[in-house]
Amino acid sequence: MTNSVQASGDPAAGFAPLRPPSSADAPPASEPGGVTRARGFRAVGVHAGFRKDPSRLDLALVVADEPCACAAVFTRNVFCAAPVTVSRAQLGADQPGEPAYGTARAVVVNSGNANAATGERGLETARATTRIVGDAVGCPADEVLVASTGVIGEHLPLEPFETGVPAAAAALSPDGGADAARAIMTTDTLPKEAAASFDGADIGYAGCTFFVGGMAKGSGMIMPNMATMIAVVTTDAPVLPHDLHKALARAAGASFNKVTVDSDTSTNDSCFLLASGAAAPAGAEPFAPGTPAFAAFEQALGDVCQNLARQMAADGEGATRLVTVNVTGAATPADADAAARAVANSPLVKTAVYGHDANWGRVAMAIGKSGAAFRQQDAAIDIMGMPVCRGGLTVPFDEDEALRRFENPEIVIDVDLGAGDAATTVWTCDFSHDYVTINGDYRS
Amino acid sequence: MTNSVQASGDPAAGFAPLRPPSSADAPPASEPGGVTRARGFRAVGVHAGFRKDPSRLDLALVVADEPCACAAVFTRNVFCAAPVTVSRAQLGADQPGEPAYGTARAVVVNSGNANAATGERGLETARATTRIVGDAVGCPADEVLVASTGVIGEHLPLEPFETGVPAAAAALSPDGGADAARAIMTTDTLPKEAAASFDGADIGYAGCTFFVGGMAKGSGMIMPNMATMIAVVTTDAPVLPHDLHKALARAAGASFNKVTVDSDTSTNDSCFLLASGAAAPAGAEPFAPGTPAFAAFEQALGDVCQNLARQMAADGEGATRLVTVNVTGAATPADADAAARAVANSPLVKTAVYGHDANWGRVAMAIGKSGAAFRQQDAAIDIMGMPVCRGGLTVPFDEDEALRRFENPEIVIDVDLGAGDAATTVWTCDFSHDYVTINGDYRS
Repeated sequence: MTNSVQASGDPAAGFAPLRPPSSADAPPASEPGGVTRARGFRAVGVHAGFRKDPSRLDLALVVADEPCACAAVFTRNVFCAAPVTVSRAQLGADQPGEPAYGTARAVVVNSGNANAATGERGLETARATTRIVGDAVGCPADEVLVASTGVIGEHLPLEPFETGVPAAAAALSPDGGADAARAIMTTDTLPKEAAASFDGADIGYAGCTFFVGGMAKGSGMIMPNMATMIAVVTTDAPVLPHDLHKALARAAGASFNKVTVDSDTSTNDSCFLLASGAAAPAGAEPFAPGTPAFAAFEQALGDVCQNLARQMAADGEGATRLVTVNVTGAATPADADAAARAVANSPLVKTAVYGHDANWGRVAMAIGKSGAAFRQQDAAIDIMGMPVCRGGLTVPFDEDEALRRFENPEIVIDVDLGAGDAATTVWTCDFSHDYVTINGDYRS
Repeated sequence: MTNSVQASGDPAAGFAPLRPPSSADAPPASEPGGVTRARGFRAVGVHAGFRKDPSRLDLALVVADEPCACAAVFTRNVFCAAPVTVSRAQLGADQPGEPAYGTARAVVVNSGNANAATGERGLETARATTRIVGDAVGCPADEVLVASTGVIGEHLPLEPFETGVPAAAAALSPDGGADAARAIMTTDTLPKEAAASFDGADIGYAGCTFFVGGMAKGSGMIMPNMATMIAVVTTDAPVLPHDLHKALARAAGASFNKVTVDSDTSTNDSCFLLASGAAAPAGAEPFAPGTPAFAAFEQALGDVCQNLARQMAADGEGATRLVTVNVTGAATPADADAAARAVANSPLVKTAVYGHDANWGRVAMAIGKSGAAFRQQDAAIDIMGMPVCRGGLTVPFDEDEALRRFENPEIVIDVDLGAGDAATTVWTCDFSHDYVTINGDYRS
């Protein structure tokens, strides 16, 4: 079957895809390993008792061998959780959105309870946690960062930290990254780790190999309340805290902030980046912005964050497909972002992907309502590399071939607005019956 | 069961609901009847052949006895359909968003094909339709307004108009409103009509009773492409075109524009308002803005539009519940709107309602990410009149009572941001398995 309104009188006119097939969206090249791939870090995941199931890890600890540079980005939701407030303050940021960076030694993450909507008592619990961890790993409490994920509106008990943290500290290991990644999971079906490396030869650090590695948990929302995006990334490159924050803000903006599972933002979203400098010779100069070394670091950091972000989108609640939305030809970066998010957040687009339906009309509707500036007659859309809309009109396509391409675990939608040079990529997942089941079950 | 974090130390403290129970959201008081309730209008609904099923009405015609004042509001989606472009131009508006008003005699609506993404040929079809209707009812083509709803990307055939319109014109009747309302349905499960009246005694038109009545079809999206909100409203009050447009823009802003079924906006949304003046004595002064007569008219128009809007939300695809979101205490009207829409569009809130879950954390998350200015500790939330959050903290509530209240066909969520005096109401529906089924089925 082909549609009857065509962009060309000749169904065989053969429009070229918007992007060459060679640029298919493969995950960025990566190393094995996660948050302990970089030198100078140990980690562990244990069962401390936040969850009832003793087989379920629920406490992760990431500890640097020495105090090291740290930066973080946090949720901007007005309803932000106690650990966000405490960690933000530890890194010198009093208000949401202020740059947060400084020196840190440890990051502690519990799952099972978000310590959100818990008022002053929740803040006290988060502060007490930093003291417990400081005592156990031998650092001041203000070098400990804290994050929580799980149910909101219930007080986070301190007891599991009191017993669990000393046990966890005793088990810290340079091979502990995988357990740590498991301990921060909530509704995630898989742990999420990624790592990347770059060689120092061409960037003024001959003989050195640098690593960036991290772990994350997903942004899908959970019963009975919402869950959280949490990521901890480490590197053994030498970077000063202020520069680390700039690099993290950029990398998160092009990765975690471009993931939208259900257009909702959690109370607890936190992303930490620690730099030990352990791969550089003692006394080596830190990577300075503008140098090839800093560019190589940013590339590796971006790859790790993007890899983790794609894993989060692919593991959205009830997801059967990762959906990548590429928008090009936007008049401004803000327009590109608005158009891509409108497509990625549209329940109609997401159910169409679930139904293996190359329904470009829904993509057109989404970009049309996004507020992005463009003219209908300049818009072009590809689905899975198949041109389906040119000049705002239907392009005939082979529906059998489309169904075949929908078997792919990643569905790619390309939109060219024909209005400028700005572009962006956003990741999401499809919308399935399981999403409704997971989020619509009775709480009681 | 009660939650463990409380806004007060005393679970029996008994917070008052944000709104008194007497202000429950009942539909505005209304008359029976629809688009032919007002004098001076006839209507009809026939099967013209846009749909294959001969038992399905697919062409509606609404005709005024005399040329009369008319105003309209249209979709602002960049992908707008041919009939929108043509009707907008008939009413003197060349660009989206320009005030559209003038003189009209007839409105023709077909279902089954949206005449969208059809290029120049689609515009020609829409223009030809106005000529066919003009010939059949005896008026110039430029006094005919046109709207279409159904699949997009396929050419709208002219033949069903050529045979159907003359037959329809011959069957026009002052009792034809109900058939017309059926003829514009797509995935709607019920036709939507509403009417209201007001007495002329106290507003300078003694001995007169005025009516406002209308019909609408829903905004839920359909397979294989998106559907449309279409409304046609008539009145026998005497109002000049320019004033009619002002009243319609205000009424639509507080009704149709406050409905959000899946946050998506169609290519074809159109709302027409025609004023015959037939209830006023010959030569009577038109209702002038600022007078009690105009205020009474606006009240009745607002009631009809709000009644239709609520019917649309309640009949959203797969809906099991109408959801009314009231936001008060916002710093600005824009903040109130942003917060209410964030709640109404949140898939997490909508699936929670489907699951009969008084999950205020999801409501808090939605307002927190909305961009509306407020402080967490000032926020209050009621669900079905039960206080569930005060000062940003959980209020203990009886979950059995909550489940009982969720049996109601309308679920009301009240939010007080504690940041100012602005308020708004938005309507939506819950998110069910059927929504995914309806929108995720294979097209082929």
